[in-house]
Amino acid sequence: MTRLKIVWPGKTKNRDLRALEEFYLARIRQFEPCDLAEAKEARGLADRYAEKIMDIEARNMERHLRDEFIVCLSDRGREMNSADFARFLEKQMSSSRGVAFVVGGFAGLGERILKRADHLLSVSRLTLSHELCRVVLLEQVYRALTIQKGKRYAK
Amino acid sequence: MTRLKIVWPGKTKNRDLRALEEFYLARIRQFEPCDLAEAKEARGLADRYAEKIMDIEARNMERHLRDEFIVCLSDRGREMNSADFARFLEKQMSSSRGVAFVVGGFAGLGERILKRADHLLSVSRLTLSHELCRVVLLEQVYRALTIQKGKRYAK
Repeated sequence: MTRLKIVWPGKTKNRDLRALEEFYLARIRQFEPCDLAEAKEARGLADRYAEKIMDIEARNMERHLRDEFIVCLSDRGREMNSADFARFLEKQMSSSRGVAFVVGGFAGLGERILKRADHLLSVSRLTLSHELCRVVLLEQVYRALTIQKGKRYAK
Repeated sequence: MTRLKIVWPGKTKNRDLRALEEFYLARIRQFEPCDLAEAKEARGLADRYAEKIMDIEARNMERHLRDEFIVCLSDRGREMNSADFARFLEKQMSSSRGVAFVVGGFAGLGERILKRADHLLSVSRLTLSHELCRVVLLEQVYRALTIQKGKRYAK
């Protein structure tokens, strides 16, 4: 079983951000297998139906979740520094459940998945675009794994 | 006089992050002229001479600074949410001094420039790579300008 999973709705549209995701994912996978599940997006709904979009996407993301320790990225979450995040990740990965990070789409994360979360994590007090958030998360997971392994983080 | 300036040492090396910088800079400039000064980097010094590198780069960056309100990005700084950052940016841009954001290189920001700063800003409790920090800053400046202009932020 993979101990590290990342779930979000749909492929990242910005080409450069997608390239960065692939860059950090490849580095993460040098240390640790990592599943990326790009769940089905809600389609055909105008942006004003944000609640509906979030609900559909939450259900689609739930199909990719098992019994993992679920960490939802949310501005209502708690911030950590990188050293604390590295310890947190190590702890969750070493449990039998493994850990799954869940990041919302442009509409945000639906209540049903936030309620199911074991932990809410905020990466910044600033509101970052959801696609930039994904890159920040992957960069931190990579950084955490290098901290765990005691390697110098590649500049 | 340009009211908005950004200063950091050297061109961003990661190609995708550089593309994102250009993407956000172009969007910022739809609203507001913005000078980007890529100051001379310290060269030929091994990473262990971080203090020396920071000092040289601080001096090189200072050549690009006038009397602006200087905001240094620093993990010792204060975090803001995006709405507060938008108000902060508007206030500084509307003063006669204008505002300059200063971001360090891989070694960090030298004491001499931190001492000269009018404000220390932290974008996250997490340690982000200095090149990713640049993108987060530009994204926030763009977001702040859209908030000021009351435009919907392009997803």
